[in-house]
Amino acid sequence: MTGTLYGLGVGPGDPELVTLKALRLLRASPVIAYLAANDGDSFARSIVAPHLPGGQTEVVIRIAMSADPTGGQAVYDRAAEELADHLAAGRDVAMPCEGDPLFYGSFQYLFTRLAGRFPVQVVPGVSSLTATAAAVPVPLVSRNDTLTVLPAPLDAAVLRERLASTDAAAVMKLGRHFEKVCAVLDELGLTHRALYVERAGLPDQRVLPLAEVEPPVPYFSMILVPR
Amino acid sequence: MTGTLYGLGVGPGDPELVTLKALRLLRASPVIAYLAANDGDSFARSIVAPHLPGGQTEVVIRIAMSADPTGGQAVYDRAAEELADHLAAGRDVAMPCEGDPLFYGSFQYLFTRLAGRFPVQVVPGVSSLTATAAAVPVPLVSRNDTLTVLPAPLDAAVLRERLASTDAAAVMKLGRHFEKVCAVLDELGLTHRALYVERAGLPDQRVLPLAEVEPPVPYFSMILVPR
Repeated sequence: MTGTLYGLGVGPGDPELVTLKALRLLRASPVIAYLAANDGDSFARSIVAPHLPGGQTEVVIRIAMSADPTGGQAVYDRAAEELADHLAAGRDVAMPCEGDPLFYGSFQYLFTRLAGRFPVQVVPGVSSLTATAAAVPVPLVSRNDTLTVLPAPLDAAVLRERLASTDAAAVMKLGRHFEKVCAVLDELGLTHRALYVERAGLPDQRVLPLAEVEPPVPYFSMILVPR
Repeated sequence: MTGTLYGLGVGPGDPELVTLKALRLLRASPVIAYLAANDGDSFARSIVAPHLPGGQTEVVIRIAMSADPTGGQAVYDRAAEELADHLAAGRDVAMPCEGDPLFYGSFQYLFTRLAGRFPVQVVPGVSSLTATAAAVPVPLVSRNDTLTVLPAPLDAAVLRERLASTDAAAVMKLGRHFEKVCAVLDELGLTHRALYVERAGLPDQRVLPLAEVEPPVPYFSMILVPR
């Protein structure tokens, strides 16, 4: 009997935005594994910290946030082997993931390495996308609106084309790309509709009309252009 | 002291995919309100039914699923007034919404009518989008992928243009538009990447490669075209 790998979406940051299902599987697993920055704490672990029963084996997967892709792949290779040892020994492994595991989540790097070898179950979570709309709050899309989600590191030309052809949009991972995104939105006449949200749902969340934001902004921030 | 209107995302259908926060606010509200089809039960209420403490006032907002927009607006006008009476009398009203309240949700029709007059708080929920990816499971988007969400009732030309210019896509609200969507995906050579998911996360969920699906399909189904 091998163990099961559980990818658990634990939501955007508020420990109360965890689902009952993620909580049950998290607490029942003898092993929990999570990503952490090389030089800091794990955001995913901090979300579930109030819920942990104690006594679980914890596997910390340390990744350099600015890692080149090759280095990152080696980290995931090693982490997958460590998790595989637990799974092969019959121990379930629960991996709490901020937001949703399959929506821009790093869980997929372990999923692709382990899904063929062990049972994997994914529990969806509240994504940063809907948490950001709720933080404002503002209706994001309705009826037959189209929605486009765009990572800010994309080229300005790509951002321009996609933003021009959708009803509503969300631009993620802003950080140092913030001013490029603002310039594109300005050019398209969309700035007056755009909202800036940082740390959605956390006690220190910030919600501002885009025109009022002074950079620099963090990586974990989002611009919404609602319908 | 007026009451607060709570828009509570209660997830895609599994009562265990409710968040702790939605559950707390749902149970604490003296009044709950939800949408129901004219001739049937309320999907939103069925999701939270196992969690209700009993003794709450229930406001059922009956809508014709095939309603013309004008008729629908009158229903929301009347429902907003009924909720306003409770709120003005100081009673909190919790409105459980399937999926997320602001992501193609009908909550927004009450939100827009009441947000200027009473305090409104929205609790984000697990959306059908991430629940569908988890049901497969398949990574939906990663790194700098773009994602486009498209309602199936859109014209074939619009669907074609948007599907051709994105890395990953989700097509919602299939129903009688299924064959039109399939034809567009075929034309773009995307059928081999496309997955069909019905009733994600429920005991009777169906997950199939798109090529194996026999219409008719229900309205609450989705096609994913992962990266």
